[in-house]
Amino acid sequence: MSPPLKIGICGLGTVGSGTFNLLHENADLLKARAGVSLDVVHVGARRDNPACDLSGAQVSRDIFAVAADPEVAVVVELIGGTTVARELVEAAIRAGKHVVTANKALIAEHGNALFALAVEHSVQLRYEAAIAGGIPIVKALREGLSGNRIEWLAGIINGTTNFILTEMRDKGRDFADVLAEAQALGYAEADPTFDVEGVDAAHKLVILASLAFGMPLKFESVYTEGITRLQPQDVAYAEELGYVIKHLGIARQTNQGVELRVHPTLIPRQRLLANVDGVRNAVLIEGNAVGPTLYCGAGAGDRPTASAVLADLVDLGRATGSADPSQLPALGVASGNLQDLPVLAMEDVESPWYLRMEARDKPGVMSGLTSLFSEQGISIEALIQKAPLEGQTLVSVIVVTNQARQGSVKDAVRAIEGLDSIDGDVTCIRVEQLDG
Amino acid sequence: MSPPLKIGICGLGTVGSGTFNLLHENADLLKARAGVSLDVVHVGARRDNPACDLSGAQVSRDIFAVAADPEVAVVVELIGGTTVARELVEAAIRAGKHVVTANKALIAEHGNALFALAVEHSVQLRYEAAIAGGIPIVKALREGLSGNRIEWLAGIINGTTNFILTEMRDKGRDFADVLAEAQALGYAEADPTFDVEGVDAAHKLVILASLAFGMPLKFESVYTEGITRLQPQDVAYAEELGYVIKHLGIARQTNQGVELRVHPTLIPRQRLLANVDGVRNAVLIEGNAVGPTLYCGAGAGDRPTASAVLADLVDLGRATGSADPSQLPALGVASGNLQDLPVLAMEDVESPWYLRMEARDKPGVMSGLTSLFSEQGISIEALIQKAPLEGQTLVSVIVVTNQARQGSVKDAVRAIEGLDSIDGDVTCIRVEQLDG
Ligand SMILES: NC(=O)c1ccc[n+]([C@@H]2O[C@H](COP(=O)([O-])OP(=O)(O)OC[C@H]3O[C@@H](n4cnc5c(N)ncnc54)[C@H](OP(=O)(O)O)[C@@H]3O)[C@@H](O)[C@H]2O)c1
Ligand SMILES: NC(=O)c1ccc[n+]([C@@H]2O[C@H](COP(=O)([O-])OP(=O)(O)OC[C@H]3O[C@@H](n4cnc5c(N)ncnc54)[C@H](OP(=O)(O)O)[C@@H]3O)[C@@H](O)[C@H]2O)c1
Repeated sequence: MSPPLKIGICGLGTVGSGTFNLLHENADLLKARAGVSLDVVHVGARRDNPACDLSGAQVSRDIFAVAADPEVAVVVELIGGTTVARELVEAAIRAGKHVVTANKALIAEHGNALFALAVEHSVQLRYEAAIAGGIPIVKALREGLSGNRIEWLAGIINGTTNFILTEMRDKGRDFADVLAEAQALGYAEADPTFDVEGVDAAHKLVILASLAFGMPLKFESVYTEGITRLQPQDVAYAEELGYVIKHLGIARQTNQGVELRVHPTLIPRQRLLANVDGVRNAVLIEGNAVGPTLYCGAGAGDRPTASAVLADLVDLGRATGSADPSQLPALGVASGNLQDLPVLAMEDVESPWYLRMEARDKPGVMSGLTSLFSEQGISIEALIQKAPLEGQTLVSVIVVTNQARQGSVKDAVRAIEGLDSIDGDVTCIRVEQLDG
Repeated sequence: MSPPLKIGICGLGTVGSGTFNLLHENADLLKARAGVSLDVVHVGARRDNPACDLSGAQVSRDIFAVAADPEVAVVVELIGGTTVARELVEAAIRAGKHVVTANKALIAEHGNALFALAVEHSVQLRYEAAIAGGIPIVKALREGLSGNRIEWLAGIINGTTNFILTEMRDKGRDFADVLAEAQALGYAEADPTFDVEGVDAAHKLVILASLAFGMPLKFESVYTEGITRLQPQDVAYAEELGYVIKHLGIARQTNQGVELRVHPTLIPRQRLLANVDGVRNAVLIEGNAVGPTLYCGAGAGDRPTASAVLADLVDLGRATGSADPSQLPALGVASGNLQDLPVLAMEDVESPWYLRMEARDKPGVMSGLTSLFSEQGISIEALIQKAPLEGQTLVSVIVVTNQARQGSVKDAVRAIEGLDSIDGDVTCIRVEQLDG
């Protein structure tokens, strides 16, 4: 058997400690599968973690000592963020070490430069754990579906928002109320902005899109909308209409450009994706050969995320001695062959829409509405007027449109909001049929 | 760019023609991803297929000419069966060629010898297409989940039986009736025995189990039960109880041995797997790090199956120049390290059971039944006595047990069948909670 793969782990938080401990717990089978022993020889952590028995490994309080250690062959970056982590990854690559990371922010925002640096130094930069936790979705796109032109993909790629939406639907609760509980349960961070505003999902989406379409990472081009403004009544009306609201990352190849968008979305209840509840993640991918395939599992947590880190380490162990990175390009195609596809402007993105407006219950309202839609060339799939509540003069009117350009929908909405018979703003949520 | 990967395709039937045509349709992206051009230089087919334009490739009526062609680097075996296909694969390996196949029967029944031969000749024998069509499930188990001890897996791995069961449930139809339609629609073969008796699923299950547990293929040890005897009333009663009947392949690691079994199974309706309908396939895998992950998609068809063949070809293209097969062992661990795990006898397998019996509606029947169960140490989860139909003296009694040894259940069933108050045989179907 070949000499061990010598690993340095930086960061001993949730994922770092999970990885460290699983490397020991599953040591025998990892060795059998990798063909070499996976040995942690150096840990970089500002302080010990009581969950980890560090005897046997060298421990440095300065994580850069790990990147500089001549014995270390792979640096596992699990500190997070885009500042120190970036410096660490660059230092490790320059020192000729492979890097494994779970850091989606780092890859989404600085991946292009980091992948190029890795090629320059003939090392691999692996990031299976950065998207959808333990689901091997990077491998599925980069290798398992490599025979396909990927048409589109849609994913539940943030467990916190999916947990909140599931609770809102099942119990009719408010966003703020459920968020507070999610924080208490430890599903949501103390500062949940990245999750509920969709930034975390946008980080993951852009990586998925680059893998799927063979294009450079364009994080700045992702349209990002969170779930903070979602009302319980829309969740309930969606359900009445046969839909479930999910917070999706969607990427699609069209003749005009690539769609990159993260937003709440109504999807038909009978889709498997609509039934992925709680903190689970799932990604649905449409390929021109295979059709739709779905991948579902735990999108976060110490052990699921560590599972993905270990998969990258086993791959590196198996490839020991053939470390030419040109053989497995980070984004599936060699960086020189990535295509700089244009990103479609959101106003040109087409989808059906769910619109809710509060109307004064008087004659002519409906015909006024429908003529505004037809002026924009938008056809209506369903129009529902709810009965006014006791003592109320306003009634909710819900419109589901057919496929329509966002620009036209927004024009129609502006005109509707100008009507005397309409009170306040129109609530607008995209719909996707996801029917491959 | 390196020189092309030169491919020989043997067999131009459903999968062969799909593979040939997709290699052309997706040629540019395959080249970008593989880093080399994937060129079909030789086709072996007894006759032309009007769906394929063979100009540009050499065509031989004798498939063995492809295996002998010094120009060919990879032989793609798509003729099926375990006789000529076996000779062809052996000839190709002995000639120093990599082999890609979709042939589950061949791998399940002769894989141990073929993988050893491939190692001996330093070539790869790849078979992603052999299981679950286009779902990259081999890659998920062998690489994506390599950090996990796999506890169990359960899969819908035969599209024909899943289509039949879906129709039986949705429309209350008979097995024979739906089978005839599936044959007319082309979902089922003219001779559907391999599908409906579970042999095809057993072929796939044993490969999944070997990948999951790192053990040699033991096709002869798989317990195999088809769906031919399933009654519409059991499908309906299962539904009343909150279950769906699926034909599953199940593999599980226990302290006593490995379970390898294919049979109809009641699973809770709310599981995603219970909602995988029609010809789709899905595999649920429980790993000790990641927990449960699910993989779903098209399990058959020309293009989905070709998608998996192409993935193997792209992998081979990417690895050009590093063809040492020890780096990616066929079953995930090097053959010398496979563990010869014992297979658990079916009588020792534990699961809950669904039992239906026809009882004469008279006093004391129920207490007689329940005492027979408790004599065998079997506890009862639910017991339902249906109202007798107009003019009938027999009533259906349905029992769902808790976890019980199959041996004890069968003993109890024999005793029940001996009771005067019971008419005919007891219908016995296993239940799985699949709750990881
Ligand atoms: N948690 C998940 O479920 C999950 C899932 C997928 C991906 N990820 C990604 O995995 C990475 C790690 O996440 P995590 O949840 O494990 O975070 P965490 O629990 O906060 O752990 C981060 C660790 O990094 C250390 N660290 C941070 N900055 C450092 C610095 N400048 N120098 C030295 N050590 C430093 C921290 O040390 P101190 O304790 O001393 O501050 C801590 O041990 C992030 O990129 C995250 O996005 C996490
Ligand atoms: N169809 C699917 O959806 C699917 C899915 C997964 C895996 N697979 C597997 O893929 C393989 C191929 O299946 P398929 O559906 O493509 O079968 P198919 O349509 O029956 O095609 C088989 C092809 O092999 C040729 N062939 C058979 N025996 C031959 C021989 N002795 N010499 C030369 N040519 C021979 C046949 O030629 P003739 O036409 O001259 O007889 C035909 O072109 C099988 O192992 C199957 O289990 C199929």
